[in-house]
Amino acid sequence: MAEEIARTASLSSSAIRSLSNDARVTALNRIADALRAGKDQILTANRTDLEIAEKTGVATPLIKRLDLSKGDKFDTMVQGVLDVANLPDPIGKVTFANKLDDGLDLYRVTCPIGVLLVIFESRPEVIANITALAIKSGNAVILKGGKESFHSFAAISNIVRDTLAKTDIPSGAVQLIESRQEVSDLLKQDQYIDLVVPRGSNELVRSIKDNTKIPVLGHADGICSLYINADADVSMAARLAVDSKTNYVAACNAIESLLVQRSGLESHLPAVAKALIAAGVTLKVTPEIATALDAVGVDTGGQEGRRVVVPADEQDFATEFLSLTIAVRAVSDVDEAIRHINTHSSKHTDTIVTSSQAVAEKFLNGVDSSGVFWNASTRFADGFRYGFGTEVGISTSKIHARGPVGLEGLTCYQYQLRGSGQIAADYVGAGGQKEFLHEQINI
Amino acid sequence: MAEEIARTASLSSSAIRSLSNDARVTALNRIADALRAGKDQILTANRTDLEIAEKTGVATPLIKRLDLSKGDKFDTMVQGVLDVANLPDPIGKVTFANKLDDGLDLYRVTCPIGVLLVIFESRPEVIANITALAIKSGNAVILKGGKESFHSFAAISNIVRDTLAKTDIPSGAVQLIESRQEVSDLLKQDQYIDLVVPRGSNELVRSIKDNTKIPVLGHADGICSLYINADADVSMAARLAVDSKTNYVAACNAIESLLVQRSGLESHLPAVAKALIAAGVTLKVTPEIATALDAVGVDTGGQEGRRVVVPADEQDFATEFLSLTIAVRAVSDVDEAIRHINTHSSKHTDTIVTSSQAVAEKFLNGVDSSGVFWNASTRFADGFRYGFGTEVGISTSKIHARGPVGLEGLTCYQYQLRGSGQIAADYVGAGGQKEFLHEQINI
Repeated sequence: MAEEIARTASLSSSAIRSLSNDARVTALNRIADALRAGKDQILTANRTDLEIAEKTGVATPLIKRLDLSKGDKFDTMVQGVLDVANLPDPIGKVTFANKLDDGLDLYRVTCPIGVLLVIFESRPEVIANITALAIKSGNAVILKGGKESFHSFAAISNIVRDTLAKTDIPSGAVQLIESRQEVSDLLKQDQYIDLVVPRGSNELVRSIKDNTKIPVLGHADGICSLYINADADVSMAARLAVDSKTNYVAACNAIESLLVQRSGLESHLPAVAKALIAAGVTLKVTPEIATALDAVGVDTGGQEGRRVVVPADEQDFATEFLSLTIAVRAVSDVDEAIRHINTHSSKHTDTIVTSSQAVAEKFLNGVDSSGVFWNASTRFADGFRYGFGTEVGISTSKIHARGPVGLEGLTCYQYQLRGSGQIAADYVGAGGQKEFLHEQINI
Repeated sequence: MAEEIARTASLSSSAIRSLSNDARVTALNRIADALRAGKDQILTANRTDLEIAEKTGVATPLIKRLDLSKGDKFDTMVQGVLDVANLPDPIGKVTFANKLDDGLDLYRVTCPIGVLLVIFESRPEVIANITALAIKSGNAVILKGGKESFHSFAAISNIVRDTLAKTDIPSGAVQLIESRQEVSDLLKQDQYIDLVVPRGSNELVRSIKDNTKIPVLGHADGICSLYINADADVSMAARLAVDSKTNYVAACNAIESLLVQRSGLESHLPAVAKALIAAGVTLKVTPEIATALDAVGVDTGGQEGRRVVVPADEQDFATEFLSLTIAVRAVSDVDEAIRHINTHSSKHTDTIVTSSQAVAEKFLNGVDSSGVFWNASTRFADGFRYGFGTEVGISTSKIHARGPVGLEGLTCYQYQLRGSGQIAADYVGAGGQKEFLHEQINI
């Protein structure tokens, strides 16, 4: 069963990969039309999901997220398909070209990856977005969404398949699966599936990495730091710390650690600590930080009954709190900050506040994270804010795609060599005398 | 022990990543000097390896490959280090830049991957090449070479470490390990090691993929095909088939399958089959091909006692013979050729012979292999022939780096955001009203 699904996807991938951007855009436009026409059908299925969720005691905030009839959610979903359709074509871009010899031209051209297995959360509108991303990038996709929206997913997926049947894209290019067992079986189909994209909890990503040989594009922890160099503008440091920590505490690009240059403990720490405390943050601090805060009269004993400054242990500097808690310590300088971050962070996004360009450049080049920022909130680490038009996900991998991943992350490349009958045996290195030209071709 | 090695590499990686190209080139120049100065020491260690190999009955061709004193092998090894040093710097290249707002500029910049674990064969000169590749690309590397050259490796590695101790590069950036057990333990260190590069047999690559969560850059099978469209120049088709098959049969870019358009069985097959047979190749053919060859009097019974045309079974079209054997079948047209290749090949390199640009473009865009060629031998699929200056290895992965991999394959990228105190909460999507500019910055 899993093998059949994977093989169907692989065969469909072989067909969709050579379709023009026009053909892919036409299909997406038709899908958008069909979704609009099928609104009643989809919302009926969505009500079934909502009823089941209520009966089985799903928490109210989650139920709200499942409801596709709320506000302009449905129209936004359809518009999202059209937005992806209208992005520049990520396929067929020449990224390198080299004339090996007269009449023997090498081109490196972007192409689809092949077959994607995308595992995602329960928000029903997400399936339309992922379908659009896959088709726009010429990939076949196998979809598994959170079970709470299964009826909504099935209704949307049926419309997608029926629509594709009337286009050049084989309907096997988009397949929906239902059970966790199927996911588990599909993770063994490394012969057919080229990339797994899990969008969900860290546990999900780790469990998938543990159980497959297929490459995984995913996001494990988001342990981000903000480092304040002693020459930083104090109010900027406070503002950036508060935004990076509190703008959305559950986000992977929120900071979990605050590093302050030792020589700035008097000049910078008090204002920053007070701003964080005022924003409701609890500080987990080293003894050195506690002493510094005591010295300037920051109330470390409690505020309206809440203890806002508590002792930190070493593990706190490698913890993703995902709450209004931050670990705080001093470092001697930017070099120690870099070492601390490269050792403790999850290599997601880290920022420095400094007025010195030289110190900033040292930080940007020294920190081994997918996002390295200077005088900016870590919360900007996001595909939409980066201007990608869409976000496939966030990657904490060190290869292929890092950080916020746009459509490009669903492409790879192939080498196209256009010759006129040349054989290797005529050239040096393979028995012959001819030398290669190796002249760069202007793209 | 393995964890200590991996952590040392990780710490060293944090230091080497921010060094300038000048610092890396200086280190490589010093290594080249030190290798030249240590020639006697290295050749003495190499003789120890040769003596052990002779005593333990290692095959003569392998012993020849172990001998570093042969011809100009030593000088070539040293020159190889200088050649890599002089390649363009792969680090710090801006590949995307976007103005998010005034004073908030995003740059995507190439950077080292981090820590590499490279497992390679017994040729003693290879360790110098891999060391050079790692240092040039700003990565730390853990090296494991074939045990037959252990003393040579140790001598070279000691010189490298002693030399690095006198440079800005920490000597922990290049570490040599000895045993398979250490490899096995290191494969568990996914916290510290970012990429495994196995250069060796397919079995090695598969076994490593089975035993690690770390991404693997490697090369499994090389099942390549040549497809002859019926409008092809017949003598070109024969020449390309012979070169692709026989120029070096043990190479991964040699063809294992020959596909002939059905309408070309009379016009093209006989000349191509005769040329292959004359070059010593055995054809494993479908009944349809056998009948076609019989009809034109190709001796399918044997030639000087050797049966040169034998029946093929389905499995032969998914087999890497690595010998003077080729599987041959007919297909109705380029579409069937594409489907056959996408289903049976290892997605390495496939070539079409045709005089039609339209047919060729269909093939180039439809075949899902890292190399897709038109009127050229598959044997050109090689980093040196492609003009990369050096080859890290060949990848059959569908993500990160595909096909012959140059220095670029040892890099990834990070996003550097240079701001002036901006916080996300001021912008749309995070609570504010400010719109992003998203203006492309000319690189």
